[in-house]
Amino acid sequence: MDKLVVIKIGGNIIDDEKKLSSFLHHFSSISEKKILVHGGGKLATQLAEQLHIPQQIIEGRRITDADSLKVVTMVYAGFINKNIVAQLQSQGCNAIGLSGADGNLIQAHKRLATNKIDYGFAGDIDAVNSKLFETFLNSDLSPVIAPITHDINGQLLNTNADTIAQEIAKSMSSDYDVILIYCFEKNGVLSDPENENSVISQITPEYYEALKKGNTVFAGMIPKLDNAFAALKNGVHKVIIGKAEDMVDLLNGEKGTRIINE
Amino acid sequence: MDKLVVIKIGGNIIDDEKKLSSFLHHFSSISEKKILVHGGGKLATQLAEQLHIPQQIIEGRRITDADSLKVVTMVYAGFINKNIVAQLQSQGCNAIGLSGADGNLIQAHKRLATNKIDYGFAGDIDAVNSKLFETFLNSDLSPVIAPITHDINGQLLNTNADTIAQEIAKSMSSDYDVILIYCFEKNGVLSDPENENSVISQITPEYYEALKKGNTVFAGMIPKLDNAFAALKNGVHKVIIGKAEDMVDLLNGEKGTRIINE
Repeated sequence: MDKLVVIKIGGNIIDDEKKLSSFLHHFSSISEKKILVHGGGKLATQLAEQLHIPQQIIEGRRITDADSLKVVTMVYAGFINKNIVAQLQSQGCNAIGLSGADGNLIQAHKRLATNKIDYGFAGDIDAVNSKLFETFLNSDLSPVIAPITHDINGQLLNTNADTIAQEIAKSMSSDYDVILIYCFEKNGVLSDPENENSVISQITPEYYEALKKGNTVFAGMIPKLDNAFAALKNGVHKVIIGKAEDMVDLLNGEKGTRIINE
Repeated sequence: MDKLVVIKIGGNIIDDEKKLSSFLHHFSSISEKKILVHGGGKLATQLAEQLHIPQQIIEGRRITDADSLKVVTMVYAGFINKNIVAQLQSQGCNAIGLSGADGNLIQAHKRLATNKIDYGFAGDIDAVNSKLFETFLNSDLSPVIAPITHDINGQLLNTNADTIAQEIAKSMSSDYDVILIYCFEKNGVLSDPENENSVISQITPEYYEALKKGNTVFAGMIPKLDNAFAALKNGVHKVIIGKAEDMVDLLNGEKGTRIINE
């Protein structure tokens, strides 16, 4: 099977012009087939503030009312996505920027409101169009995915980029040997959150249970690691967590944390 | 040769939710292969005003400084493009929204400043990637093109949507029997600009010369008609000018103005 690298980057890279440019340079140099999923960053919040649209973020997720949806659609699928694509094109990487609505790539449904919370126009993913991703990859295109999906009834939906990366990785794993890389602001999963040198190089399911029992894994890491193990269970070959700046070393196994099945 | 319909819509449709929805319904029902090119509309100007970015429009073209480029990238390639795509998907049309940077679909260069005027980040088109358009059409995708291109050196460029539609139509005409439709606010080319019922049903090059000499064609129409004849000279089969609301009748020849070679 062909290798496929799926990489997710977040705000800490997107908001830093120099880091982003360096990351995109390294991304372009990956010789395997590749898909980039990007999150948002400060720009959406800034734009919402300038437009006097109040923003509320609960557990890291934006409450997306109609005005906020307009803002994130403009910023994520417009400004960020097209600037990443133009930069990749300048590096010789034939990038194509897409939302989940384009070609019905990622279909979702609006998250149901509960008594406790209504996330607004937030999407939970139902299906990934892996056939179309394959068509793109076979045409030597590298998809760049903005965290906006749709419900096939005309409604765009703001969708978590970590989850998008995971769902794409899972759906592609029947045809590709998929490596999923989550980039974030730390060197990897740390045994001491205060010490960037305490990277745990490898985590198996058993070790993960032990880490959780010993409270060694801090709270913010748990959804990421749960996602990683869920991806492995669904056929993804390898999950790597680390810094976007270290991408070359993440890929060759010299940095970051590898999440493996056993 | 397969038929290909290339349709350009402008602000008068995009700014009117009801008209846009009705147009997209008719667009979805076109059984031939199809490409939609959309312009901007009032939203970009409104957003620029809200963000206190002064806007200057000369001869119908926006002077695009760096801040304005950010605005049009967000509005055209983000908000308008993705909303059109989501609506088309809900109508069963497998739309894919793209800028000229995506897959290097439309390569341009920054228009040179003259002594008289500097358009800023405005793009003049150098090349259309007709092979990739063909790949999309063969995958039963209908491209929806935002008027943003790139220069392959990482720079996005604001680009006239009429010109984009023309260049796409020309470049596809070696492989398809292309019909190019320019939608605007009038019923067609009018012999009396004040009378919507004075539609000229057909214009040949000779008749066009006569109309210009008699000042029957008003100034704003001339670049559109020049574009239309240029497209015909470069292999486009037929150019039709009329109202987006009449699209079904424009296609079957019952409304609008047909521009033909003889």
